[in-house]
Amino acid sequence: MMRINVDECAKMLMEQDNILILTHAHPDGDTLGAGFGLCRALLKTGKKARVICADEIPSKYMSIFKELKMPEFEEDFIVAVDVATPNLLGDLCEKYENRIDLCIDHHKSNSEYAKKLLLDVDAAAACETILEVVKKLGVEVDKEIADCLFTGISTDTGCFRYSSVTANTFKAAAELVELGAENGFINRIMFETKTKTYAALERLAIEGMQFFSNDRVCVITITQDMYKQTGAKEHETEAIAPLTRQIEGVEIGLTIREKPNGECKCSIRTFESVDAAKLASFFGGGGHKQAAACRLECSVEEAEKRLVAKCEELLK
Amino acid sequence: MMRINVDECAKMLMEQDNILILTHAHPDGDTLGAGFGLCRALLKTGKKARVICADEIPSKYMSIFKELKMPEFEEDFIVAVDVATPNLLGDLCEKYENRIDLCIDHHKSNSEYAKKLLLDVDAAAACETILEVVKKLGVEVDKEIADCLFTGISTDTGCFRYSSVTANTFKAAAELVELGAENGFINRIMFETKTKTYAALERLAIEGMQFFSNDRVCVITITQDMYKQTGAKEHETEAIAPLTRQIEGVEIGLTIREKPNGECKCSIRTFESVDAAKLASFFGGGGHKQAAACRLECSVEEAEKRLVAKCEELLK
Repeated sequence: MMRINVDECAKMLMEQDNILILTHAHPDGDTLGAGFGLCRALLKTGKKARVICADEIPSKYMSIFKELKMPEFEEDFIVAVDVATPNLLGDLCEKYENRIDLCIDHHKSNSEYAKKLLLDVDAAAACETILEVVKKLGVEVDKEIADCLFTGISTDTGCFRYSSVTANTFKAAAELVELGAENGFINRIMFETKTKTYAALERLAIEGMQFFSNDRVCVITITQDMYKQTGAKEHETEAIAPLTRQIEGVEIGLTIREKPNGECKCSIRTFESVDAAKLASFFGGGGHKQAAACRLECSVEEAEKRLVAKCEELLK
Repeated sequence: MMRINVDECAKMLMEQDNILILTHAHPDGDTLGAGFGLCRALLKTGKKARVICADEIPSKYMSIFKELKMPEFEEDFIVAVDVATPNLLGDLCEKYENRIDLCIDHHKSNSEYAKKLLLDVDAAAACETILEVVKKLGVEVDKEIADCLFTGISTDTGCFRYSSVTANTFKAAAELVELGAENGFINRIMFETKTKTYAALERLAIEGMQFFSNDRVCVITITQDMYKQTGAKEHETEAIAPLTRQIEGVEIGLTIREKPNGECKCSIRTFESVDAAKLASFFGGGGHKQAAACRLECSVEEAEKRLVAKCEELLK
């Protein structure tokens, strides 16, 4: 593994062709915005490039990123964007984990698995760094690229809400809007639009909120039964996790989702007093200081018990 | 009434002393941020200045703006900030409405009541314009001023979410963060913290959501009884209005609040297809294209009926 800077990264990409871009499983706006933004920029330089993801890409993203003709090819160079560890690649992990030439990321927990690593832990989103890279590729950053990168920055910061947002984040946003990014439209799609099925699920989730440790821990549990009852899909439920942290006095918010295979996935949200990545690490997960995730191979009840016990320990 | 620009506005303020700053009733982050930000800057130039408001200022704002020693004096010059029409001054209207020397505002619906008017309808918040003015006053924009102005911009844009946000808004935010504004802390206070009483009220409000006009209109009604039942205060309920517009397919969101005197206040949120200010104007109110408000002297049931009827007319 070798750390590189933005200039070296852009130079490296310019020397390559047939570039495969990997995004993480359960894709969010940042990995997808980074992937499609970089792919569009590389295609503009005349190279062949393609983005792939282990999981289906929610349609709301494609309504912003627009259809993109990506050529078929045998890859010569593999880039992972916003992927902290190879296992986050999901079903793509096995095939690619030892072959990743370049990783562009902003997670402190990056496991340095790629041959070359451009890591900016001060960036609020991987797309903040991708913007710097594509500017160095010598292509015009067009409206489509700007939309991709704005989506990543906006979604990874809860629409500029989190403390990870710096002056640079706002400057990048200003630049992308000047380049044509439709910020109002993108934020409306990403933050202002609840499907009726999601609204029904959210209502159930809020009704079932539980509090522990003198109300310093808030837990929302989403079972397979709740999906059935409301018709909501798992990928629609990203907006649930932030709800756990919004009640006065709550320091740790846990959102435990039951998976079809009986496993649980837990999204962790914290404030400064607790390190979310550390809590996740006890269960083999990872992430940022205030937003992390992990998986537990047990029932939701058992997962809740184990997670809450660890929270109580950390809050002592 | 004479329109003036930022330079003229700053020059005018520099020539005055004993400056009284008026904010609108039911104060929000923008009128307060503008008032306190401007006041702090004027005090730094050695002038006497003071901010007043007809209504109590919610404590969450003062936790950001910090205590400010404002001198007593007989006012020689009166400035209104973020006040579109004199009646929005509430109980201060009668005393001051014909004596306002300067208005700094961003509402298209400004009724041009002040002797001099600095109006920038492209600004997403009055604080965006106030930042330009205070920079021209020749004082250093310190952390405290930056916190005030950031609060205004952030709250008036739903944390940079609305389509009113431009590249300039993001640039102003970047500048304020560089000047010391604690964006993460401010957004946490403003957007991420729900009191338990508010959370209880929100749950009731969501449970009672009603839909009209083929689900294109969503109505939330907040009665005095709901305040009693949950312990929530009216000034805590600002975050309710955006909820009405978030469900897929909704074009008009109405939040009707019963006042203690039996009147109703209605907050209107719309998307591009409907002009919220126009809808409000039928009931003597006003505001922006996608966010407006009005009052009705009738019961909540009657208000709902009249408002929904007008919505159906507009959606035809």
